[in-house]
Amino acid sequence: MQTLLGQLKHWNKLTPSKPFVYDGELTLTYAEAYNRALRFAGGLRKLGLEKGVRVAPIMFNGFRWYDLYYGLSAGGFVNVPLNFRLAGPELVYQINDSEAQAIIMDPEFYDVIAQIKEQIPGVRHFIYTGEEKPFEGSISYDTLLEAEPYENSNTNENDLFGIYYTGGTTGQAKGVILTHKSIISNAYHLATAMRFGSEQVGLHSAPMFHLADGAVNFAITLVGGAHVLVKAFDPVAVLKAVEHYKPTISLWVPTMINMLVNEPGISEYDLSSLQYIIYGASPISPSLLRKAVKEFACEFTQVYGMTEAGPILTILFPEEHRQGLSDENKQYLLKAAGRQIIGVDVRVVDENGTDVQPGEVGEIIACGDNIMQGYLNKPQETAEALIDGWYWTKDLATIDEDKYIFMVDRAKDMIITGGENVYSVEVEDALVGHPDVLEAAVIGVPHKEWGESVLAVVAVRPGATVDEAELRDFCKQRIAGYKVPKAVEVVEALPKSGAGKILKKDLREKYWEGIDRRVG
Amino acid sequence: MQTLLGQLKHWNKLTPSKPFVYDGELTLTYAEAYNRALRFAGGLRKLGLEKGVRVAPIMFNGFRWYDLYYGLSAGGFVNVPLNFRLAGPELVYQINDSEAQAIIMDPEFYDVIAQIKEQIPGVRHFIYTGEEKPFEGSISYDTLLEAEPYENSNTNENDLFGIYYTGGTTGQAKGVILTHKSIISNAYHLATAMRFGSEQVGLHSAPMFHLADGAVNFAITLVGGAHVLVKAFDPVAVLKAVEHYKPTISLWVPTMINMLVNEPGISEYDLSSLQYIIYGASPISPSLLRKAVKEFACEFTQVYGMTEAGPILTILFPEEHRQGLSDENKQYLLKAAGRQIIGVDVRVVDENGTDVQPGEVGEIIACGDNIMQGYLNKPQETAEALIDGWYWTKDLATIDEDKYIFMVDRAKDMIITGGENVYSVEVEDALVGHPDVLEAAVIGVPHKEWGESVLAVVAVRPGATVDEAELRDFCKQRIAGYKVPKAVEVVEALPKSGAGKILKKDLREKYWEGIDRRVG
Repeated sequence: MQTLLGQLKHWNKLTPSKPFVYDGELTLTYAEAYNRALRFAGGLRKLGLEKGVRVAPIMFNGFRWYDLYYGLSAGGFVNVPLNFRLAGPELVYQINDSEAQAIIMDPEFYDVIAQIKEQIPGVRHFIYTGEEKPFEGSISYDTLLEAEPYENSNTNENDLFGIYYTGGTTGQAKGVILTHKSIISNAYHLATAMRFGSEQVGLHSAPMFHLADGAVNFAITLVGGAHVLVKAFDPVAVLKAVEHYKPTISLWVPTMINMLVNEPGISEYDLSSLQYIIYGASPISPSLLRKAVKEFACEFTQVYGMTEAGPILTILFPEEHRQGLSDENKQYLLKAAGRQIIGVDVRVVDENGTDVQPGEVGEIIACGDNIMQGYLNKPQETAEALIDGWYWTKDLATIDEDKYIFMVDRAKDMIITGGENVYSVEVEDALVGHPDVLEAAVIGVPHKEWGESVLAVVAVRPGATVDEAELRDFCKQRIAGYKVPKAVEVVEALPKSGAGKILKKDLREKYWEGIDRRVG
Repeated sequence: MQTLLGQLKHWNKLTPSKPFVYDGELTLTYAEAYNRALRFAGGLRKLGLEKGVRVAPIMFNGFRWYDLYYGLSAGGFVNVPLNFRLAGPELVYQINDSEAQAIIMDPEFYDVIAQIKEQIPGVRHFIYTGEEKPFEGSISYDTLLEAEPYENSNTNENDLFGIYYTGGTTGQAKGVILTHKSIISNAYHLATAMRFGSEQVGLHSAPMFHLADGAVNFAITLVGGAHVLVKAFDPVAVLKAVEHYKPTISLWVPTMINMLVNEPGISEYDLSSLQYIIYGASPISPSLLRKAVKEFACEFTQVYGMTEAGPILTILFPEEHRQGLSDENKQYLLKAAGRQIIGVDVRVVDENGTDVQPGEVGEIIACGDNIMQGYLNKPQETAEALIDGWYWTKDLATIDEDKYIFMVDRAKDMIITGGENVYSVEVEDALVGHPDVLEAAVIGVPHKEWGESVLAVVAVRPGATVDEAELRDFCKQRIAGYKVPKAVEVVEALPKSGAGKILKKDLREKYWEGIDRRVG
């Protein structure tokens, strides 16, 4: 299998003058993007970077991501995309854990990088994308791109494409090791299942540092399509981009779809170019789906997966959405995460690895070329996650006779707030770091706009008291703002099972009674 | 990557009751075909066959090929499909070279197998598909299928899928080593490029022992489509099958298309189900294409490749055919073999491996996951064919600025007669085995129906004479009937270059003057 660069190379050969990326006023053809990618690789090479070196971008959505995707691939370098909403200590951890030697930063992130500079001694090169030099020793991105084109022909599908950090049950983010084979396989699976063709134009307003957008992105490039970029999700910016650039596909999470359909004036935009809205992270409620179908008049596709799966495991097709809306007996399909996508084997099993009966709860496990190689520097977590070629997701689900999968409990006790994954354990770790907190449980509670919001339930040490505002401030020093609890509930003691395990189900109950845990 | 079985398994899981194979009165669902495949594997296992053992079918098209494809994959066995038109000595060579331990034979081939039985001592099991036992010790196919289902879970993409024999410049057929990865990659390339979906129904009337049909076959199974089988190509049988089973896709060579459009009464058949005719082996003439478009009212796609490429390298899309027919400035597209298909890098280079300029003749080389691992037991030929990850096809071509490839001289001095490849050297080797023949050159000459027919030009030993009928009889003992020269021309001496190389170009000239070397 080729590296990811092979896809761009193919279309650079066949349709060099076709537009590939639209970003504001800028349009890059396939030939221009290919040339940029090779020059980007050449620039890093000139800095002395060798194959296998990790490069960490901290950037908004924009055309430079294509230099990154394909240029890093050209040079055999490894992409370590940073979530720009992370707090300093989280960035420090990921940069050091991945041993990144270069950082590429948008102006909005000069400050945070300058602040942590001393704590990331392995980083030898700070590359800035703006006009002005942010600090001594940093290098201009544009200057970097003046290098001669370079391609390391000694790369193949088994080389690392990227290390994507994801939260985990241990509280510490884990670097998911993904080869080119994982990423390209996933692109083939999605493009084949969706029958994508070169007329497709993807709108990217979900963050490009996440693999969810990457999945759609790479599948569209595979078939020679084009891309429209929106710096960051904003309903008006997105609607304007749809009207102006006429994309055919967009990936959003249900909370984003919810914001769009509630945007006053949505009906004034011409959204007729959209053929497919692909959504993930959570199922969609029938009422939101109906509203969205009315406003967008297009097909809906759900994908379910996770970074470790490169990322797609299952798909719920447009036809299944149509059936769910039109046929009362099929309405249950809208609650499903879909069925295994071409190329991936997905099962729901008990703790012995035996397939559960329809309706019984089990763990989702999966096998396919898209699955990660493991977690960086975490042999034990890797050994627990990858067993005999199967990835154990820790997601709990049922599966019906037709092999539709219905989520029962999300992996890793995860809260999805506005499309961002918050892993409870990370927040709990931050909370119990406070001297007055005895123990803490973090859950998601219903939020009309964001799907869920983060709630902390804490028990304090004997004789101590805690102030909610102070506790939230305390967290903000340690974790990203979107992970900080929106509310704190103080209790005498947390409910526990006989074995001493905190019963989050009991905590969630009163908030979720009568509410479908879906957006809309 | 999964093995080929993974594709059947996927659809057995998602659409078990969907029809998968139509063969005469018989219909097999996905579940039935999957079950048969595993029982077929179980039957071979019960015979004591282990993973890696080669099994050689000599069969007409029929539903049992699906037991073979997927059952061999299930057991980790290796498919060695025999061309049933081969002469005894050719079969003996391929069976012994591949070390096949089992033969699966249709009734029409009991005699030829019985005749060579003593010369293939490695074959331990003779499995017959008919009602009656052909000879002592042979095993009933139906009995074999009564075994328990078996799957060897210790197989993966890098295991051998098959050894497919193809003629070569050395005169001896070469066993092309193909892994599951080659075959599955090719299926993804074709299915993605053609945007195949589960509604596709493939008609298989070209021989299933060739990989050309296999390519379309596996791509359709990948996306969950179905198959209609015609025992062997016959225009009336094919037209009836199209009307009755309503396939959407068929693979034919231009000579077959030519026979179909010239079939009296073609217009009485309902052929409206066909969406795509895929053809290979040679370009199609505009006049035949026009006739075919009129009769079939469907889209045309050309694929170019060879067994060594698993098999597809380039594709000429329906749109390009439409342009070629409707736009005088684009008519040249109909002479092209198309452009590189997704997932494959195809170049035309000089002897140093440098890309030639547009219009210059060079050799076609290709790189992709579909390419073979090499030739069985032929390290030198393998080393010559596979260099630094590139397959050197020996096909000569030009490439234009848009990357369309135009064949100049077919690989390995090959004659294509009625869709069968005849390698000149094999025939020449047979001819010079005759005591009176001094030297021989075999070329293809125009044939209205079959595209080309085999012509031998021979020089006899001083003082000797040869009789054409006797010489043809002599050949018939040694090579397949379709390879035997249809005519023999005796000359004083063969035209030669300064370096002593026979100038076939000169021999061909008078036959081809003013004729476009295409069918129709």
